[in-house]
Amino acid sequence: MSSEIRIAIDAMGGDNGADIVVPGALRALEKHPNLHVVLVGDEHILKLYLSRYKNNAGSRLTLQHASEVVSMDESPTQALRYKKDSSMRVAINLVKQQKVQACVSAGNTGALMATAHFVLKTLPGINRAAIICALPANNELRRVRVLDVGANVDASPETLCQFAMMGSTLAAAVDGKPNPKIALLNIGVEQIKGNEQVKETDRLLSNIKDLNYIGYVEGDDIFKGTADVIVCDGFVGNVTLKTIEGLAKFIGGLIKKEFYRNFLTKLSALCATLVLRSLKKSLNPHLYNGASFVGLQGIVIKSHGKTTVAGFAQAIECAISEVENNVPELIKNEVARLLAKNQTS
Amino acid sequence: MSSEIRIAIDAMGGDNGADIVVPGALRALEKHPNLHVVLVGDEHILKLYLSRYKNNAGSRLTLQHASEVVSMDESPTQALRYKKDSSMRVAINLVKQQKVQACVSAGNTGALMATAHFVLKTLPGINRAAIICALPANNELRRVRVLDVGANVDASPETLCQFAMMGSTLAAAVDGKPNPKIALLNIGVEQIKGNEQVKETDRLLSNIKDLNYIGYVEGDDIFKGTADVIVCDGFVGNVTLKTIEGLAKFIGGLIKKEFYRNFLTKLSALCATLVLRSLKKSLNPHLYNGASFVGLQGIVIKSHGKTTVAGFAQAIECAISEVENNVPELIKNEVARLLAKNQTS
Repeated sequence: MSSEIRIAIDAMGGDNGADIVVPGALRALEKHPNLHVVLVGDEHILKLYLSRYKNNAGSRLTLQHASEVVSMDESPTQALRYKKDSSMRVAINLVKQQKVQACVSAGNTGALMATAHFVLKTLPGINRAAIICALPANNELRRVRVLDVGANVDASPETLCQFAMMGSTLAAAVDGKPNPKIALLNIGVEQIKGNEQVKETDRLLSNIKDLNYIGYVEGDDIFKGTADVIVCDGFVGNVTLKTIEGLAKFIGGLIKKEFYRNFLTKLSALCATLVLRSLKKSLNPHLYNGASFVGLQGIVIKSHGKTTVAGFAQAIECAISEVENNVPELIKNEVARLLAKNQTS
Repeated sequence: MSSEIRIAIDAMGGDNGADIVVPGALRALEKHPNLHVVLVGDEHILKLYLSRYKNNAGSRLTLQHASEVVSMDESPTQALRYKKDSSMRVAINLVKQQKVQACVSAGNTGALMATAHFVLKTLPGINRAAIICALPANNELRRVRVLDVGANVDASPETLCQFAMMGSTLAAAVDGKPNPKIALLNIGVEQIKGNEQVKETDRLLSNIKDLNYIGYVEGDDIFKGTADVIVCDGFVGNVTLKTIEGLAKFIGGLIKKEFYRNFLTKLSALCATLVLRSLKKSLNPHLYNGASFVGLQGIVIKSHGKTTVAGFAQAIECAISEVENNVPELIKNEVARLLAKNQTS
């Protein structure tokens, strides 16, 4: 698409702030000639950073001053109440004011969610926004979407059903999967398995017409591509996501250690350079960077706090894709349609 | 230790039943001259199986007939009520009757837990038994213990505290870690993070004297060796464990695929044979097979249903280790001591 896409970027957020965000934004600008980026943060600092890099974006890159920064360990309430001129808040305000179509931040997740919730509000029919992420599946690097991965430590069966509807809409629109398979994360696939929350959600989901609900899946199904969208509450989802991150790192470390054990194994690493490089690329978490806050009246993309330049550019890709597909509007319409269909029939 | 160890084995349990269990038991008998195994199951079938293998165990291997089998998808209530002569039930009965010191089963987890709970009962001071498993950590294949990984879909803060005490006792006795570090699985390490269940448990654990509680850990901490024992409810623990299993398999498949992509990569796999073999060994889930049901008046070890012969033999090793350390007695005494100390002071 060639119409202009305007994205605000919290340039001070994340563990490495502007060090990563500024070159990440420049990379995205280079790739997308129709992209306009508003870098939000301390203007003096940002100008200093921009002077370091080659920048062909011209008027497609503008700065928006914000005097404060939300730190990574700040409480969401604290940030919401006292940091009204933070780079995060100002970036979200730009979405609210429709000066941009999306914002991207690598900052404090809790504060970002609380601020986005407060400023943008949820869509009609949606109780709570959720964080949805993409994971590899099926050995073919197909994507599976998991939500919620951390916004809501508790979620009622009704809320989980809304998550299912939103995940379904996103997978259909952004991942190009018509009629995506929706599953509920549980500790077994049999009807008798699970806690009350999961059983009641299963009952509700089974009765939603026009939703391709396939039932329960277990943790090991995530990577099998059994489902296109997996629904869980934010506690289970967050533990699962971080466990995946931890295990991938652990195995990566193990591979490195085995190949660097002695002269002979180092030699075999040299032989296997191509394979190891390709493997590293396949397992690169930055390929999957960019989690989306769904259910809000606006697009907010959360980048991993510790991401790389390429990873941050990938998070901007997610934002572009959601803007191009007009995801909040799609979700609003699809949820309204499903609710109407299931109420009247 | 050279004193006789007597273990009952549910020979019909698991996805592959006697095919795996019988050779697994024979392997353990060969390794441990002081081990006596009672194979429980259909006597005719077991005799047939035994005739296939070289068997030097002599009188150290006996059979105990059981006419029924609990299937892998049978409901726990069903199994408990109607399968009173199942190989699983009879094996657990032998523990109750003190004819053996432990039992091992690869059968239906829910049925095994329900039956073990019903027949053996919990230890004094323990509300519910939990399933505790061992995972690799720290790149040095140190172990970390996680509980509960599936016995209780819900657990009160008090029950989670009992899990912490039991995990601590097991890690100290079996893993040889004096004063093991105990942590609570959460979605962040800050005090404000988590749901009510976790926050209340944190408050209770912080006040238990003589327990080395270090606070919250996140999913990615599991493999860092941050803690020796990680406590969570059975829903979160089971999803986590199965996610780990799924991801390890996924990455294994990816490695295989990359090395088998073409002639050149196959050649590099040949060069890297030693490394790949060592890697496969390190990541072998059967190395960690054998989850323990803690909190019961007897030792019950659950093997993975889809394990190998080596994996089943490893589950028997767990049973031997718990018998040698007299784990239920240790847990009973340690929980009583901690409860007394924390009540009176």
